[in-house]
Amino acid sequence: MATQVRNEQVILKNYYKGGFTNESGMEVKESTISLKVAEGSGAVLVKNLYLSCDPYMRLRMHPLGEPPFFPPYPLSSVITGYGVSRVVDSDKPQFNKGDLVWGLTRWEEYSILKDPEVQTLFKIEHTDVPLSYYIGILGMSGLTAYAGFYEVCSPKKGEYVFVSGASGSVGEIVGQFAKLMGCYVIGSAGSKEKVELLKNKLGFDEAFNYKEEHDLDSALKRYFPEGIDIYFDNVGGKMLDAVLLNMRVYGRISLCGMISQYNLEQHEGLRNLFSLIVKRIRMKGFVVFDYLPQYSKFLDVVLPQIREDKIKYVEDRVEGLENGPAALVGIYSGRNIGKQVVNTCPITPKMRH
Amino acid sequence: MATQVRNEQVILKNYYKGGFTNESGMEVKESTISLKVAEGSGAVLVKNLYLSCDPYMRLRMHPLGEPPFFPPYPLSSVITGYGVSRVVDSDKPQFNKGDLVWGLTRWEEYSILKDPEVQTLFKIEHTDVPLSYYIGILGMSGLTAYAGFYEVCSPKKGEYVFVSGASGSVGEIVGQFAKLMGCYVIGSAGSKEKVELLKNKLGFDEAFNYKEEHDLDSALKRYFPEGIDIYFDNVGGKMLDAVLLNMRVYGRISLCGMISQYNLEQHEGLRNLFSLIVKRIRMKGFVVFDYLPQYSKFLDVVLPQIREDKIKYVEDRVEGLENGPAALVGIYSGRNIGKQVVNTCPITPKMRH
Repeated sequence: MATQVRNEQVILKNYYKGGFTNESGMEVKESTISLKVAEGSGAVLVKNLYLSCDPYMRLRMHPLGEPPFFPPYPLSSVITGYGVSRVVDSDKPQFNKGDLVWGLTRWEEYSILKDPEVQTLFKIEHTDVPLSYYIGILGMSGLTAYAGFYEVCSPKKGEYVFVSGASGSVGEIVGQFAKLMGCYVIGSAGSKEKVELLKNKLGFDEAFNYKEEHDLDSALKRYFPEGIDIYFDNVGGKMLDAVLLNMRVYGRISLCGMISQYNLEQHEGLRNLFSLIVKRIRMKGFVVFDYLPQYSKFLDVVLPQIREDKIKYVEDRVEGLENGPAALVGIYSGRNIGKQVVNTCPITPKMRH
Repeated sequence: MATQVRNEQVILKNYYKGGFTNESGMEVKESTISLKVAEGSGAVLVKNLYLSCDPYMRLRMHPLGEPPFFPPYPLSSVITGYGVSRVVDSDKPQFNKGDLVWGLTRWEEYSILKDPEVQTLFKIEHTDVPLSYYIGILGMSGLTAYAGFYEVCSPKKGEYVFVSGASGSVGEIVGQFAKLMGCYVIGSAGSKEKVELLKNKLGFDEAFNYKEEHDLDSALKRYFPEGIDIYFDNVGGKMLDAVLLNMRVYGRISLCGMISQYNLEQHEGLRNLFSLIVKRIRMKGFVVFDYLPQYSKFLDVVLPQIREDKIKYVEDRVEGLENGPAALVGIYSGRNIGKQVVNTCPITPKMRH
């Protein structure tokens, strides 16, 4: 008989229709789990080490989700998300006990992953960088920044680049990619501390606190007197509308996310789309899943840049799964600085990186 | 001493800030002109035969214009526009008396064109088709449809195509290009008569009157149960917003114009841009001027299609320059069926085509 151990889990109790300002729709519950997978099940049992707080998760907490790629989470079930995990037991030949992996897992201490979840697992080969990076700069956030900037924006040296949500998990990386390419880069964020971080640590040429600007159009005209060639949009809404007035001819807009809108009953109306015509602008939405086939190429590019300290990476960690729901809610009010990560086993020092 | 002749002209008296519902801001005035160009002036004197009524002209009748490409017309001056003309006298070696040309001219009977206007003139080589076609299907309207469909939309056989403003000068051609490519094509227009035209004469698979639809989203779901791959947008506003909810994954939207918005003090707000992300849609604005270098290639493709009757072309002509202002105003309320053209010398039967 296999050992039964405690398995703390985050369950979705209720959908969030309006605001997502507190964790009341989620519940942290104790369960138990056997640390063995059944033979012939094809499953992999993992211990989750780090969990990722990603904006899209809020979309899945709405009863309708956001079809077709973000269906609603089932109620009364453990929510899913990206994580870094260690294999505890495996009935799949390609995974062995002790392997470190990252991919789609569940918000609980231990998860039994079955097809198709197992298909999304990547084995972690390089452990000389912090393991949590694999749900950030070396995982979906990094690949999002990489695809959304290089593939969607077609950047050229010397161009004027604006990144909103610039101190978030994707924005902080996009800004640094743009600097490495020789662009002039300005970021917006929601606090003085974040603005300082962008300018002093992450190498942005300039940064501003959008909450201190009454008129975003004027602010952008002040920061970009020549206009914007590339806008990497993480926020949507009013900021996107103001940017449309400040784009340069043949500009490109990469729509990565609209975090300012997800908590609204109705999205804000954008009135400046005519600019897309007179400025001949290409605006494109993208979803990182489409770029997974490029992951190993991406890793070959970014891993050395991290090792050589050419790219910095800022994380905001909370300790303990029980603090995960509040951390997830916090990213919608901008509580986090850098990528929000949940360290699910802070009590095991040897697992920390 | 050269002959002085009457020269009727359309002058912009006042800018239109709000609505553009009547011709009161324009004035038809008589002037005189000498039918000789001064030696050494480098000018070309033309008799204007057909003038084109194009949506962008309204933008130039606003005191701010629409920078950077549509500056306001100067007040108290003759308005400019595309036309088909015959050369009466020339101080440019590349143009001779009697040549037929099309390009940017002025709303008057005779125009003296100097650099840079002369640079925009194309000599008309093929006169076996109606001359007025050179301000329509064989001019900017055709090139707009060609570039906006083939270059901006990257169409593929079998795709679902939606064209708004489908009985307008560009829309009627886009729909037929799409049919020739093997797409399934539906157009929207503003009257029963236009809808019949689209279905019975222009070969659209289906068409509907948007004015009879209370809920554009439902209408689109009814007409496109599988969704829309390509949207060619001539109208903007509510229609564009409804289309965003009905696009298919990897869809493309070509923004050609937003005629529904030009008369509004403030453009309508679009709330469905998040669809661009989840559906990975590329939306691109374009201006036909960028594609002028492709004009002769375009002509090689389209001229045979017209001769072989593979493409039909519907014009709405008014006779006489004095009726030009009302015709121009009419395109904003959808008075015209097909391309609105002004025949400026209807009294000379041999000039008629």
